[in-house]
Amino acid sequence: MAYKIVTISRQFGSGGRSIGKKVAEALGYDYYDKELVKQVSMATGFAPEYIEEKGEYAQSRSRLSYLFTTVGTAGVMNGMSAADYLYTMQRKVILDIAEKGNCVIVGRCADYILREREDALHVFIHAPVPYRAERIVRLYGVSEQSPEKRLADKDGKRRINYEHFTGRTWGAADNYAISLNTEAIGEDNCVRLLTEIVKHS
Amino acid sequence: MAYKIVTISRQFGSGGRSIGKKVAEALGYDYYDKELVKQVSMATGFAPEYIEEKGEYAQSRSRLSYLFTTVGTAGVMNGMSAADYLYTMQRKVILDIAEKGNCVIVGRCADYILREREDALHVFIHAPVPYRAERIVRLYGVSEQSPEKRLADKDGKRRINYEHFTGRTWGAADNYAISLNTEAIGEDNCVRLLTEIVKHS
Repeated sequence: MAYKIVTISRQFGSGGRSIGKKVAEALGYDYYDKELVKQVSMATGFAPEYIEEKGEYAQSRSRLSYLFTTVGTAGVMNGMSAADYLYTMQRKVILDIAEKGNCVIVGRCADYILREREDALHVFIHAPVPYRAERIVRLYGVSEQSPEKRLADKDGKRRINYEHFTGRTWGAADNYAISLNTEAIGEDNCVRLLTEIVKHS
Repeated sequence: MAYKIVTISRQFGSGGRSIGKKVAEALGYDYYDKELVKQVSMATGFAPEYIEEKGEYAQSRSRLSYLFTTVGTAGVMNGMSAADYLYTMQRKVILDIAEKGNCVIVGRCADYILREREDALHVFIHAPVPYRAERIVRLYGVSEQSPEKRLADKDGKRRINYEHFTGRTWGAADNYAISLNTEAIGEDNCVRLLTEIVKHS
């Protein structure tokens, strides 16, 4: 298996996380999502909840609130904003995890951070809005916001965060080895295809 | 096989055309590329060479030359510019082909034209520039322009044409059921994966 690392980037509600977990199980690879958060928490001292919330959405606050965080005493680490410091530490943890290999890493710009590793398969999982809206209501229940508004909000924040730290266009097929639409292909088929690609590599 | 139609959009030199042909052979589907050009030629009276050149690159001329074509007597069909007329006729031919089913259609905004057909699998084939540069020199030989310049030129024209007629972003994973990087996945694996997806649909 030439591909020792699988990175999964995904639109909110597309099923990317669940596909990543199943691919890791099928391959016997380590799965990094909450585990990655735990390692970043240990390295930074930030609470896991803070990392979960800010680790992929850090740059999405208004310019003003960003400024306050940056200049506030609690917001500056080694002269960096909390957001940049968190990205730097996440990056370090992801590079360490990749060095060990045999792993699936979900989110957190891992595709970009590991872009030069030839043993990394970079995957993007997406789906049309109606499919994802139905899925998040089924999984996470209803909330005050409409599911469509929640999707637009989360996707917008992920896009801004990704583009800020990578300079790339979020969701461009070019960034990945394979991009899959879970509605068109089916979640189980996505798992099967990705597992086969790694096994035959 | 629920997918009766496969559309293949591709970056120049990525191997998309060759993959499309092999997928059609493996599935026993009709393959439309030159054949489509022939049908558009019969429907419009345009020479096949003109359709090949302009059918995917029509909107890439300068505004000035476009204006001249539009106002010139030979450039106006039913009050449309030659480019818009060609697109309209191509669209009609593609809709007819799709109606018959069991086909692979390469290029010509077929993904967009057939976007609402649930029996159409929309595929995007891409690859990094160095891989494509090496491939076009191997297949088409050298020319005055560097291969990188030829790629940028052809891709730029396809992008402008696609965005003009569809209002979509060229190369966004969102437009497709599956996007594949031929260097990372391998051309033969692309053929195998796409064939399996259709067979298992």
